Amino acid sequence: MSDLVTFGESLLRLSPPGDNRLEAATSFEVQAAGSESNVAVAAERLGAVSTWLSKLPETPLGKRVVGELHQYGIRTDVAWSRTGRVGTYYLETGGDPRGSNVVYDREGSAVTTATPDELNLDQLRDARVFFTSGITPALSPELRETTKYLLQAAREAGTTTALDVNYRRKLWSPQEAQETLTGLFPGVDVLIIAARDAKTVLGFEGDHRQLAHKLASQFDFTTVVVTRGSQGALAWHDSVVHDQDAFETDTIEPIGAGDAFTGAFLARRLAGNDVQRSLEYAAATAAIKRTIPGDVARLSQSEVESVVSDGVPMVSR
Amino acid sequence: MSDLVTFGESLLRLSPPGDNRLEAATSFEVQAAGSESNVAVAAERLGAVSTWLSKLPETPLGKRVVGELHQYGIRTDVAWSRTGRVGTYYLETGGDPRGSNVVYDREGSAVTTATPDELNLDQLRDARVFFTSGITPALSPELRETTKYLLQAAREAGTTTALDVNYRRKLWSPQEAQETLTGLFPGVDVLIIAARDAKTVLGFEGDHRQLAHKLASQFDFTTVVVTRGSQGALAWHDSVVHDQDAFETDTIEPIGAGDAFTGAFLARRLAGNDVQRSLEYAAATAAIKRTIPGDVARLSQSEVESVVSDGVPMVSR
Amino acid sequence: MSDLVTFGESLLRLSPPGDNRLEAATSFEVQAAGSESNVAVAAERLGAVSTWLSKLPETPLGKRVVGELHQYGIRTDVAWSRTGRVGTYYLETGGDPRGSNVVYDREGSAVTTATPDELNLDQLRDARVFFTSGITPALSPELRETTKYLLQAAREAGTTTALDVNYRRKLWSPQEAQETLTGLFPGVDVLIIAARDAKTVLGFEGDHRQLAHKLASQFDFTTVVVTRGSQGALAWHDSVVHDQDAFETDTIEPIGAGDAFTGAFLARRLAGNDVQRSLEYAAATAAIKRTIPGDVARLSQSEVESVVSDGVPMVSR
Amino acid sequence: MSDLVTFGESLLRLSPPGDNRLEAATSFEVQAAGSESNVAVAAERLGAVSTWLSKLPETPLGKRVVGELHQYGIRTDVAWSRTGRVGTYYLETGGDPRGSNVVYDREGSAVTTATPDELNLDQLRDARVFFTSGITPALSPELRETTKYLLQAAREAGTTTALDVNYRRKLWSPQEAQETLTGLFPGVDVLIIAARDAKTVLGFEGDHRQLAHKLASQFDFTTVVVTRGSQGALAWHDSVVHDQDAFETDTIEPIGAGDAFTGAFLARRLAGNDVQRSLEYAAATAAIKRTIPGDVARLSQSEVESVVSDGVPMVSR
Amino acid sequence: MSDLVTFGESLLRLSPPGDNRLEAATSFEVQAAGSESNVAVAAERLGAVSTWLSKLPETPLGKRVVGELHQYGIRTDVAWSRTGRVGTYYLETGGDPRGSNVVYDREGSAVTTATPDELNLDQLRDARVFFTSGITPALSPELRETTKYLLQAAREAGTTTALDVNYRRKLWSPQEAQETLTGLFPGVDVLIIAARDAKTVLGFEGDHRQLAHKLASQFDFTTVVVTRGSQGALAWHDSVVHDQDAFETDTIEPIGAGDAFTGAFLARRLAGNDVQRSLEYAAATAAIKRTIPGDVARLSQSEVESVVSDGVPMVSR
Amino acid sequence: MSDLVTFGESLLRLSPPGDNRLEAATSFEVQAAGSESNVAVAAERLGAVSTWLSKLPETPLGKRVVGELHQYGIRTDVAWSRTGRVGTYYLETGGDPRGSNVVYDREGSAVTTATPDELNLDQLRDARVFFTSGITPALSPELRETTKYLLQAAREAGTTTALDVNYRRKLWSPQEAQETLTGLFPGVDVLIIAARDAKTVLGFEGDHRQLAHKLASQFDFTTVVVTRGSQGALAWHDSVVHDQDAFETDTIEPIGAGDAFTGAFLARRLAGNDVQRSLEYAAATAAIKRTIPGDVARLSQSEVESVVSDGVPMVSR
Ligand SMILES: [Ca+2]
Ligand SMILES: [Ca+2]
Ligand SMILES: [Ca+2]
Ligand SMILES: [Ca+2]
Ligand SMILES: [Ca+2]
Ligand SMILES: [Ca+2]
Ligand SMILES: [Ca+2]
Ligand SMILES: [Ca+2]
Ligand SMILES: [Ca+2]
Ligand SMILES: [Ca+2]
Ligand SMILES: [Ca+2]
Ligand SMILES: [Ca+2]
Ligand code: NI
Ligand code: NI
Ligand code: NI
Ligand code: NI
Ligand code: NI
Ligand code: NI
Ligand code: NI
Ligand code: NI
Ligand code: NI
Ligand code: NI
Ligand code: NI
Ligand code: NI
Ligand code: NI
Ligand code: NI
Ligand code: NI
Ligand code: NI
Ligand code: NI
Ligand code: NI
Repeated sequence: MSDLVTFGESLLRLSPPGDNRLEAATSFEVQAAGSESNVAVAAERLGAVSTWLSKLPETPLGKRVVGELHQYGIRTDVAWSRTGRVGTYYLETGGDPRGSNVVYDREGSAVTTATPDELNLDQLRDARVFFTSGITPALSPELRETTKYLLQAAREAGTTTALDVNYRRKLWSPQEAQETLTGLFPGVDVLIIAARDAKTVLGFEGDHRQLAHKLASQFDFTTVVVTRGSQGALAWHDSVVHDQDAFETDTIEPIGAGDAFTGAFLARRLAGNDVQRSLEYAAATAAIKRTIPGDVARLSQSEVESVVSDGVPMVSR
Repeated sequence: MSDLVTFGESLLRLSPPGDNRLEAATSFEVQAAGSESNVAVAAERLGAVSTWLSKLPETPLGKRVVGELHQYGIRTDVAWSRTGRVGTYYLETGGDPRGSNVVYDREGSAVTTATPDELNLDQLRDARVFFTSGITPALSPELRETTKYLLQAAREAGTTTALDVNYRRKLWSPQEAQETLTGLFPGVDVLIIAARDAKTVLGFEGDHRQLAHKLASQFDFTTVVVTRGSQGALAWHDSVVHDQDAFETDTIEPIGAGDAFTGAFLARRLAGNDVQRSLEYAAATAAIKRTIPGDVARLSQSEVESVVSDGVPMVSR
Repeated sequence: MSDLVTFGESLLRLSPPGDNRLEAATSFEVQAAGSESNVAVAAERLGAVSTWLSKLPETPLGKRVVGELHQYGIRTDVAWSRTGRVGTYYLETGGDPRGSNVVYDREGSAVTTATPDELNLDQLRDARVFFTSGITPALSPELRETTKYLLQAAREAGTTTALDVNYRRKLWSPQEAQETLTGLFPGVDVLIIAARDAKTVLGFEGDHRQLAHKLASQFDFTTVVVTRGSQGALAWHDSVVHDQDAFETDTIEPIGAGDAFTGAFLARRLAGNDVQRSLEYAAATAAIKRTIPGDVARLSQSEVESVVSDGVPMVSR
Repeated sequence: MSDLVTFGESLLRLSPPGDNRLEAATSFEVQAAGSESNVAVAAERLGAVSTWLSKLPETPLGKRVVGELHQYGIRTDVAWSRTGRVGTYYLETGGDPRGSNVVYDREGSAVTTATPDELNLDQLRDARVFFTSGITPALSPELRETTKYLLQAAREAGTTTALDVNYRRKLWSPQEAQETLTGLFPGVDVLIIAARDAKTVLGFEGDHRQLAHKLASQFDFTTVVVTRGSQGALAWHDSVVHDQDAFETDTIEPIGAGDAFTGAFLARRLAGNDVQRSLEYAAATAAIKRTIPGDVARLSQSEVESVVSDGVPMVSR
Repeated sequence: MSDLVTFGESLLRLSPPGDNRLEAATSFEVQAAGSESNVAVAAERLGAVSTWLSKLPETPLGKRVVGELHQYGIRTDVAWSRTGRVGTYYLETGGDPRGSNVVYDREGSAVTTATPDELNLDQLRDARVFFTSGITPALSPELRETTKYLLQAAREAGTTTALDVNYRRKLWSPQEAQETLTGLFPGVDVLIIAARDAKTVLGFEGDHRQLAHKLASQFDFTTVVVTRGSQGALAWHDSVVHDQDAFETDTIEPIGAGDAFTGAFLARRLAGNDVQRSLEYAAATAAIKRTIPGDVARLSQSEVESVVSDGVPMVSR
Repeated sequence: MSDLVTFGESLLRLSPPGDNRLEAATSFEVQAAGSESNVAVAAERLGAVSTWLSKLPETPLGKRVVGELHQYGIRTDVAWSRTGRVGTYYLETGGDPRGSNVVYDREGSAVTTATPDELNLDQLRDARVFFTSGITPALSPELRETTKYLLQAAREAGTTTALDVNYRRKLWSPQEAQETLTGLFPGVDVLIIAARDAKTVLGFEGDHRQLAHKLASQFDFTTVVVTRGSQGALAWHDSVVHDQDAFETDTIEPIGAGDAFTGAFLARRLAGNDVQRSLEYAAATAAIKRTIPGDVARLSQSEVESVVSDGVPMVSR
């Protein structure tokens, strides 16, 4: 029985070493990466027993994804499939003004055909929190249905539900996203959303405090977390807004910081911390994550706590 | 205007360094690889100006394929597409009894939708030889049509046509292959086929000499080349069978040796060598290819000639 | 509840890439390696749910060992310690006549102080088989006591006990090994021993069949497996000797083949196969293992089965 | 027929990975690098069909240079030589106050003996622009003659001529450079020059606008581009001076940015853009180039355009 | 006969490439590293013939340490031992707020048992300066005795003695350090100490000038150097305080900068420079060192001099 | 004072990793390599204090060569030059029938201008043996003079002289070699020569015993060693011929085995072993060398002795 169950896709992330370009790559670093598995890892590191649900083809590549996630310390409960691929994406990282670039190659992945009867729903019924992101319903019509079903099943079992909007413009249009996500919102207790997405996708306006208030009142969420990258985050909860600055950080890898934030926030809430304290842990986790190569928050709770209690550490020897 | 035009798919080959397993891979070496581009490179190295026709998505990955093929020295004439992927495959190499393993991930690639009107048919009409492999029609119904059309267009333009059967059991069944390929044979002048495929796919029986005779007589080919790996190859031409032993070789990479053989054979025929001499070049090219990492015959005509004229070289300094 | 529980040390194996010498190394490949964790992985791959018991320091290095073992698919139950190191060894591999060389640097590792009360004995009491190797009691006086205690606890709980003699001359003398191990034998049901060790350490004489008979009769084992490297293995069981040839193999990495053999043998026995069939699986597993870099049998049961049912596979595509 | 033809040397650039020192190097990254081939690549990427003329030894290293340049997308027309080397240089990159360091090892390279009759002058006669840099005549007395001849041949054929002064103090003294280059200026239409070189080498004084005016009036150039690194660039043309700021950039690799600037400027002029617009493209190309490892502007016109039309991109996914 | 003799431990530093975490490491870069060997290398590079005294096990790893130090250009005089290990430490480097982390694994190293009679004391008796750091007596009771003995032996032979306090909190407490080090101070001529250590370990107060004065007067040193990282350093000598700013630097690797500073200071004093000039060299050496990967100051005196005489160099070509 | 002094060139050897081709290389492994430095290293490892004399440019590359040779444990006495390059060669290794290929790029190296007055002749006058190879006089007319002078200077000082013919067809013709080398022979005491070179270069005939006899009698050598690769070696000394088989070996790197043989032979003769015993050490050293990547015999005397006293070692743990 897990504290947190997440559902979604984990892809193979193929990335040229260093600052190399995709067109020049003679090798790729490979890593399992996906918003919901990232969230599970971050939560596990911050104290929550976490399980990732998904569907994968029974190939060496599918097995590789699960092996890597086990290495990070989480549990998995996967529907093994004879058809479908392991989704991939190609990531090229680069400084300004080049910027980083993602080439998705994830169509036809096994998880896009996942139906509720293939998944071990007892996992989410027995959990305390169920999490998925807005990426999942963006992947296929089947997954829109499945996501809705899972949120409902969790709700019915008394499991708190959490959703990170995580809008990806290369997957769907703002209009499609709005329509689908607002259809899911009635089943969601905790919403995490970037201020940018609240505006672009949902069409809300105002400063971040206003965004949180409006979202909470319109969709009746228990908690709304609005993230603003290097400008911090805030959470609406019980009609109160809690504000949190971002910690300063030397960014090695921006990708995965949002997932680390979310996982840490959920884990600390599960551990009984109040909203303000959980935000502080979440911001510190995200700051450390940005110093770690790859998508995943390979860090420990004690490292997060030493950032929370301030002191930027020197070389420790 | 090229001596040789080939049509087919070139994929990204993703392969863990050394003898590492796919499940353990933290990085992949990446290379553009495909039977028809391999054949074009080998032919170019053996003296034939060669062009590869295909269809690719206009992404950094599609551009990467073309850039790599240019590096090998061939020309390309590609239909750039806004949809479809670059096909990939994962290759794990290993000694016996593990063996090597290929995981194809090539469904939905751009080339599978290639139609004759998207391709620059003048290329093959102006060429002296047009080549494709049995892999191409295996990839999609559209490509079965397109392959047939191209063979016909070449024939009508007076371009000699060549086909390597190259049966891939992970792509289609022997029955499907037989039906499709025998439908193409009337448009083919030069057939290259592994003895194994002649039996398994086409249902022929007998020793390799008999296979060549039967194939030639049944389908009215000008030339039939039957390959037998380390046991050598033979060619039927003008009712005569020419036999050629394989050269001894330290195999680093078995993949691509067949393509190297075929490219060299076609190039030497184009250069005016007789069938026996061309077989000798082809066997020597395949032997050198097996010492070279990757799919592609990165070698020179003078290296092939020094093998043909015997002497296994020592360290040359 | 596991089918198999193993107890022992897993070290960090530090090895220069390729055939490089230790004196020339500018980098090391690092891997968690240890006889008992290797056995657990091989058994898991062959179908037995497996757990590794040990003691490690609560440092990033200790966590790294556990993370890696999780990646291989086994469970761990570790006593976390504030003192002691993670043991290491440096491995240089080389062809003849250089040979491979191991420099042990494992003194003072946390596991050398492990006492029964620190370990979760319920794990082995609930298991069907408990396994350790002769390396474990070689590591410290405390571990000699602990090993004896664990064998006894397993026996009392009705858990079958298995021991691989695995003599290491850099750890102790034949005399010390003989004295300690023969003291443990009364608690052992299944003995695995290299023919060489039976002679050098235990002082037995005769051919391998005689060795098996004498060992079984003198120490009252249920099963005795005598291994002879490339010459195969044999097992004495119910007064019958079963013989098994080794499979031909292209050796990339000899280290870990014995552990793979043992893990597979135990797993197949647990799965209900008879001794002869289990030996066959064990020999096939060892053969595949030798083609895989590193200590660990990263392979699948279906791969083993395809070797057992003969066919050395070609490139499969 | 090319839009742009360039003539010069491309060397093998040997560079330790990362920030490593030459004295500590155990490996070198290798790349073909040279001002004129760099300019050709940048121009090709910005829309101009480009060909590089040179002379190379017919060795695997000479072939390697040409293969790499083909990969970048340009054409080559090389005089193959039985004597002479491929020039090399060793590059160590490092932060301040260490700085980067180049050790030239280029004496005796094949191109230093190139005479006009060895080169395919039809290439530059058929082109719209011919380009070389001040490095070329610095390499040997023969190349001073050849450079002069080529500029004249281009002029006579109605091909616009362009020269980048590109002073290298490790190749010749300011006095030698001044004497040689001013002797070439009468054959040059478009001059590109660093403000620093205008002062140090040519002895001009004043701010950059004055430098441009004086150069244009004294030598009767059609266009003079004065570059000032991070302070931008300006162009004198038809008695008007056009100013352009540099774009902000995260510099990974400063080397090659000047060549990227020049190639882009020439390509956009060839494409019909006015001087101001071409400068803007050139500055954006240089800014992106600085984020790309290696000498070469591996980028696309659309990337340059997205910088020109402002927006520094975020991770695009 | 050396100008400088140093005594201490050199460990194998095992560090994941790039910014990778220890828990994620699949390989380690390895380097010989230790304060006293680092100081010897820096001094050698700045003109002082330098010898490192130590004790190592006669294993490939011990030989590797000596080979690497020879590569840096220093001499070694090592007591070869049949027991004891080569100490190691694991270094993970990371930006803020993660920080770098060192996991020491150095207990039981051969040098911790070094006694004066095992060491070639003629080396330090014949030298002009003898140096060790506060790390050495922290390693074992035997080394406390040995350090004291060596300082005395040097003093008696008329060799100037120098000590860098170099407090390491993972080795001993401030109280232990204070007690031991103040017991050694009477044998020390030149003290190097971080302002931070003067406060934390020795309990001194005041600004850095006051710290220097108090230390000099209380312990009767000839010279006291107080270092303050990026805020510079100062030296008390003959009752005069000399101040030196730090040079600006792009830090690639902070570790070893203090050792580089000390080695350069001692070398320039040995070369006859006055205290102010020596400080300037020391600060420039430390600044360049920070741009060099690894512990060791792989640089040349001429590079240091070009920084001292100002100019931050551009790419030099 | 050294036992052995050698004189010659050490080049930077640039070699693509693995079996990669030069035309495909994106990186090179780099190592200092040269017959005379290789011989010095092998001799040092077998017990002879060894010094390498040469001339190098005072650049980071020249320093790199010396640093690497120090790492191997030998002494160097180098004339530092302001002109000339560090010679290089590109090495591509490959199995049959491709073979390995060397592209020399060593013209104009500093050592080619070395004159006796630039070299520290006291080194060879104080040594017991002076060694050079036939490569040295092949490099330039100056070096022919210098080699002759050094052999004479050694002879006059009572230093035994040794020469390895080491014919390189890419450096000079058999005729040039014969003329030059036979002119040097009167100054040589110990000749080492491949049977192949005795025939091809010197025009001798007969089996290897006859070759040794004829060489000894015609040129009045004290000792003649005739090597025959995998067929062993023999030595003529005091009118007796001593025969030695080659040891079986897994060849990783054939290059440098001859130098290892020669260095070991000279070192064991210096240590007082008789000719037969020294041949045995030499053959064992060459066999181990062939298992070690790179040019240099990174091995220990004890490893050689364990091969001499037979036993091919297993994994030692
Ligand atoms: Ca990257
Ligand atoms: Ca993600
Ligand atoms: Ca591979
Ligand atoms: Ca293929
Ligand atoms: Ca290895
Ligand atoms: Ca083991
Ligand atoms: Ca670099
Ligand atoms: Ca350049
Ligand atoms: Ca690092
Ligand atoms: Ca240190
Ligand atoms: Ca190689
Ligand atoms: Ca050599
Ligand atoms: Ni990375
Ligand atoms: Ni990254
Ligand atoms: Ni990354
Ligand atoms: Ni391969
Ligand atoms: Ni490869
Ligand atoms: Ni490969
Ligand atoms: Ni290995
Ligand atoms: Ni390996
Ligand atoms: Ni390995
Ligand atoms: Ni760079
Ligand atoms: Ni780079
Ligand atoms: Ni670079
Ligand atoms: Ni570092
Ligand atoms: Ni590094
Ligand atoms: Ni580093
Ligand atoms: Ni090699
Ligand atoms: Ni190598
Ligand atoms: Ni090598």
